[in-house]
Amino acid sequence: MGNSHFIEQAITATAEAVEKALDRLLPQPEGLESRLLEAMRYAVFNGGKRLRPFLVVATADLFGVDKTRSLRVAAAIECLHSYSLVHDDLPSMDNDDLRRGKPTTHKQYDEATAILVGDALQSLAFEILASEKTHADPHVRIDLVRALAKAAGPHGMVGGQMIDIEADHMDLDMGGVSRLQQLKTGALICFSAEAGAILGKADDHRRSQLLAYARDLGLAFQIADDLLDHQGDPDVVGKAVGKDAEQGKATFVSLMGAERAQQQANMLADQAVSHLKDFGERAILLQGLAKFVVHRDF
Amino acid sequence: MGNSHFIEQAITATAEAVEKALDRLLPQPEGLESRLLEAMRYAVFNGGKRLRPFLVVATADLFGVDKTRSLRVAAAIECLHSYSLVHDDLPSMDNDDLRRGKPTTHKQYDEATAILVGDALQSLAFEILASEKTHADPHVRIDLVRALAKAAGPHGMVGGQMIDIEADHMDLDMGGVSRLQQLKTGALICFSAEAGAILGKADDHRRSQLLAYARDLGLAFQIADDLLDHQGDPDVVGKAVGKDAEQGKATFVSLMGAERAQQQANMLADQAVSHLKDFGERAILLQGLAKFVVHRDF
Repeated sequence: MGNSHFIEQAITATAEAVEKALDRLLPQPEGLESRLLEAMRYAVFNGGKRLRPFLVVATADLFGVDKTRSLRVAAAIECLHSYSLVHDDLPSMDNDDLRRGKPTTHKQYDEATAILVGDALQSLAFEILASEKTHADPHVRIDLVRALAKAAGPHGMVGGQMIDIEADHMDLDMGGVSRLQQLKTGALICFSAEAGAILGKADDHRRSQLLAYARDLGLAFQIADDLLDHQGDPDVVGKAVGKDAEQGKATFVSLMGAERAQQQANMLADQAVSHLKDFGERAILLQGLAKFVVHRDF
Repeated sequence: MGNSHFIEQAITATAEAVEKALDRLLPQPEGLESRLLEAMRYAVFNGGKRLRPFLVVATADLFGVDKTRSLRVAAAIECLHSYSLVHDDLPSMDNDDLRRGKPTTHKQYDEATAILVGDALQSLAFEILASEKTHADPHVRIDLVRALAKAAGPHGMVGGQMIDIEADHMDLDMGGVSRLQQLKTGALICFSAEAGAILGKADDHRRSQLLAYARDLGLAFQIADDLLDHQGDPDVVGKAVGKDAEQGKATFVSLMGAERAQQQANMLADQAVSHLKDFGERAILLQGLAKFVVHRDF
């Protein structure tokens, strides 16, 4: 499909640009702590699709934000996201040996190094946001820091991971699974869209439209993720599949069935797009992204 | 000694005030993620002496900074410091079962929870600094965030922990041990003094005097710590002692011997105090702190 090809190209182009930014922003491996610096790069350059960076850049583009700025914020978010993957993969968490077909960081290095890699990537994310190079206006920078800290913290991503670990014996209903996912993956996806709005000094109305878009997008993304775990091809997905069912974990798919889950994901993608109508044609990339996340096969 | 009694009282009073601030700032355990929130409190309310908070508050006092502000920054630093202790104690790191006589967080809860507690406390530290309640001027807040991110990150505390883990097979000389400690404990101690200066909008000259004080203080503190591990009473220190020697780890004591190490610590404490002379009588607490850290028995 033409539209799908177009959005995939745009995602790839942004991924390349954000990886160049990350290469400049990640410290070069040298000195006594070089093992840590090398492992940070291993964890970040992991073949990810960089969907959160794409969301930042596409949202910031709506307001004509300079790309050097939006790419720095995109890189910060990717540092934070990469840290969360490294810690989630640890033996005491999800105990995954592979991510996108490559050994996870604790497999490639060791557990202690992987824990420190995550810790250092979180600090680096805030260091990038706080730099003058990210935005001349300190109000903008502190707004970014505050929003990321909230999205990442105990009532955000980390809280979601806590619920996910406990989910095995919590017997979550639909409300519980929604809350889990809104925290675990939704909070950082919402921040990605919000960050574009903050960089663009958007008014409250525009900001809340973009947040509403991101909320629906994040949920659609997660349902699609559950569907991939349920019926995906491990070679394409790049990690083990069927883990949720094996562990008896409540997911959107286990609660709704695959067919209804797919319908729900499509409905959420449409709803996400509907929040963009005030932006008109300029929001074409964000519209495309919403369709893309529910039809991806990885 | 009168002076030592005076400084201990001042440290205790600040510890009580910062614990009240922490109690307000840490989320209340509720909701599906309550296990995380409860464990965060367990990790932070650990009977620590709160020396870094004391350093923040005493430095900020030199510039007449409002206590509600300096106590918030002190609480943020203590969140960050507590996170580092929780992660350092993990089985794949130092593998400690006790801290100040109580089970470490992964012993009291479990490893996954302890990792998430550390992650969430780091986010919370930045969230506290970014809040308007910490300072009305966003320049001040972003300056605090930038300095903490740097002190905590790959060329700061986490880099130091990486070197510490590798130290067993790196055969560090005095330069290596100094670098390790300047990163692992020195960076956050320097930030604590710097934070007071930032809150007080100190000029560059004053700021660098306080940083010079903190650098010497941090090194004196660490040498005293090595001495405690070498010859301390485990019941007073509150954790196992003699671990460094057992692991054949290079420390200031193993490289210099206990007697010279004690002389070096005293010399550094005197040198730290000498950087404060421009502040006159007002710096009496910081002077007392320098003496205190080399004569403590815990």
